[in-house]
Amino acid sequence: MTKYQTSPPVIALLTDFGTVDPYVGLMKAVMARIAPQARFIDLTHHIPPGDIRRAAFVLWQSYAFFPPGSVFLTVVDPGVGTARRPLLLECCGHRFIGPDNGIFTYLLQQGPARGYELRHPAFRLPQVSRTFHGRDVFAPAAAYAALGVPGEAFGPPVRHPVQFSLPPCEVDPSGNEVRGQVLHADRFGNLLTSLGLWHPGPQGWRLTPWLRQGPEVVHFRPRAVRLPSGQRLPIVGTFGDLRPGEAGALVGSTGLLEVVVNGGSAAEQTGLRPGDPVVLEGVAHGERP
Amino acid sequence: MTKYQTSPPVIALLTDFGTVDPYVGLMKAVMARIAPQARFIDLTHHIPPGDIRRAAFVLWQSYAFFPPGSVFLTVVDPGVGTARRPLLLECCGHRFIGPDNGIFTYLLQQGPARGYELRHPAFRLPQVSRTFHGRDVFAPAAAYAALGVPGEAFGPPVRHPVQFSLPPCEVDPSGNEVRGQVLHADRFGNLLTSLGLWHPGPQGWRLTPWLRQGPEVVHFRPRAVRLPSGQRLPIVGTFGDLRPGEAGALVGSTGLLEVVVNGGSAAEQTGLRPGDPVVLEGVAHGERP
Amino acid sequence: MTKYQTSPPVIALLTDFGTVDPYVGLMKAVMARIAPQARFIDLTHHIPPGDIRRAAFVLWQSYAFFPPGSVFLTVVDPGVGTARRPLLLECCGHRFIGPDNGIFTYLLQQGPARGYELRHPAFRLPQVSRTFHGRDVFAPAAAYAALGVPGEAFGPPVRHPVQFSLPPCEVDPSGNEVRGQVLHADRFGNLLTSLGLWHPGPQGWRLTPWLRQGPEVVHFRPRAVRLPSGQRLPIVGTFGDLRPGEAGALVGSTGLLEVVVNGGSAAEQTGLRPGDPVVLEGVAHGERP
Repeated sequence: MTKYQTSPPVIALLTDFGTVDPYVGLMKAVMARIAPQARFIDLTHHIPPGDIRRAAFVLWQSYAFFPPGSVFLTVVDPGVGTARRPLLLECCGHRFIGPDNGIFTYLLQQGPARGYELRHPAFRLPQVSRTFHGRDVFAPAAAYAALGVPGEAFGPPVRHPVQFSLPPCEVDPSGNEVRGQVLHADRFGNLLTSLGLWHPGPQGWRLTPWLRQGPEVVHFRPRAVRLPSGQRLPIVGTFGDLRPGEAGALVGSTGLLEVVVNGGSAAEQTGLRPGDPVVLEGVAHGERP
Repeated sequence: MTKYQTSPPVIALLTDFGTVDPYVGLMKAVMARIAPQARFIDLTHHIPPGDIRRAAFVLWQSYAFFPPGSVFLTVVDPGVGTARRPLLLECCGHRFIGPDNGIFTYLLQQGPARGYELRHPAFRLPQVSRTFHGRDVFAPAAAYAALGVPGEAFGPPVRHPVQFSLPPCEVDPSGNEVRGQVLHADRFGNLLTSLGLWHPGPQGWRLTPWLRQGPEVVHFRPRAVRLPSGQRLPIVGTFGDLRPGEAGALVGSTGLLEVVVNGGSAAEQTGLRPGDPVVLEGVAHGERP
Repeated sequence: MTKYQTSPPVIALLTDFGTVDPYVGLMKAVMARIAPQARFIDLTHHIPPGDIRRAAFVLWQSYAFFPPGSVFLTVVDPGVGTARRPLLLECCGHRFIGPDNGIFTYLLQQGPARGYELRHPAFRLPQVSRTFHGRDVFAPAAAYAALGVPGEAFGPPVRHPVQFSLPPCEVDPSGNEVRGQVLHADRFGNLLTSLGLWHPGPQGWRLTPWLRQGPEVVHFRPRAVRLPSGQRLPIVGTFGDLRPGEAGALVGSTGLLEVVVNGGSAAEQTGLRPGDPVVLEGVAHGERP
């Protein structure tokens, strides 16, 4: 059993519930009864309904910035009321609560994890509806986890949580291209891609290991990003390096390559949509020993 | 005088202010000055402007899940600045602050209540505008209520708060139909109806007493839901009991019958709108003694 | 050095990040690590992308209602990653954190202010991205400010923060008109204007000094508001003084004149847009000695 405690404990929320209905408020009400000292931080409630991949991405994008020992309540649950298991996952110094439907896929690339099924009735509401496990199963579990209840107390271990296949980030055999795809657009129309690259260093860019498929290339000297139309975009450091209205690519705050427009929406200007291919051109070197 | 205290006290917010303007933040700022320890939980700020019935419904849907002694700040107030009274209502172990315009209608079905007019100037801002009582009258009152100020201190009793007529949930004289209507769609396109039914039991479904009109039927064995088009929908336990894209009806997390589509929007697929009639077909039995 | 302390400290947030992406939650996560006791109050995250003027207005509209010693984290930052300075401003008993791009323009009319550049690396994240200073620079600074770190510790003084020109509120030489413009519409379609007037008094309305240009008129007896179409709107006290659907003008909760419709949207009904001229007709008197 791992010791988890923050003071006061933080519970982060990530759902597809929107904010028009009171569903998020109801989960917080349930948690406030169980763990009155817990603090809530909303990641987003505007995951497109049922979009488990988007939720998994946002969770990965966010968890590392939270206080150690935070609890994440992640409810994107199109299978609510069916046989899919409710899960508590211990991973990366935090605890994650949600349905076992792939929502933890990106997280599980980050390090060792232990899963437990949320089965013990003491950590649910007395009456469990068949359509709102966020309120009746997951929120109580998150609150009890914030109080320090250990994973083992919730139910039996889950050895192999459901995972979906990761989006591509493939180094071409020639070593001169990395092939990925558009993941989604953010509020500003910036297009996040699966091209996982960390900040520039003296030897070029370093590819995020767990995203990378193909040859064991660890560094890459980038030249341009090629869109499906054949258009090549310059690679820059920030928005202001582009002329107003100009499109380019940069390493965004998540460490992934983003297609952006200075003062505009890249999603609108390029017409690119989730799943569309993007190619990073350059020269790979510094192969892993 | 009733003792109300939680530690720390919870103030739930429900408005039609949206989240584009800073109106909600201003109410929280005012409350944080008066009651620095109070915790805020947002139910929703996206009630359609002036839609008192929707606000009254959301309040009823939510209050029971909050810690005992919570304060609810409910501001949907198209009559701001006119003669309508500002109100504090003690009911169901909580306190509710808002305009006396019917917003507490559903609540008042739940049990005995005491109302007080918010009149004492000590519990308002020094300057009261004529267009934003949420900030100047209701938020200070909610904060003082959270500090434990008793209802009597705010002003004189209000004997008969304004109420609107409840939506229909009528048992047919034959006992074989319950007639209701669509209330509204939620974020997922699920259509909440006025058919108030609790969870299935051994004798069939039990009708929510305060919603029920007509013969004193207490149990009902349901067969199908009939839409205005004549279409009959199956009654299921959860979304996954339907084929993807199939429409059906289920008892939602509020205890009301909902028309739903597995993996889709019932509002879009059926074209039903608020006020449209829906009929539950089945057999009533177990009349009240 | 000024002493700033509230208990628990309040951090108000104002951004153009929206709530679909986790950007706001990431800033709160960073702050919760540094200042676990701080309380967050969201003003809005729906400033139109890059609209510094709107953000400056909302900040001015809001700050005075917060507990003394609050910290405001204001990130509308189209120049992120360029040479624009990150700033801490001490003003009006609060502290304000944000880019030096004009976002503090309205505030700087309110009284003496001291600015400091956020330069010391101890008060940033260890790794600073070039596209998300909200998370990496501004949020840590806000959290440390909430802990009581004095402005001087963050970096060198900034003598002249960037300011944009204020919207017009000009008293006509005749003294019989005040000319302003539409600023923006709120959620309800109410049109806020630059006509800065406080509540009516025995001598007529008093013009907000810092908004006023032209002769030193301090009181004004208003008659009507004239729109570009020539239409004249009556001046009323609150929405309910108008017939349902009727347009008029009133002094809103911010002390500015607003064009409104009772039970409707003035933005839709009048077709007025930000920047359109509006004229207050009446008689000026009580010139400043």
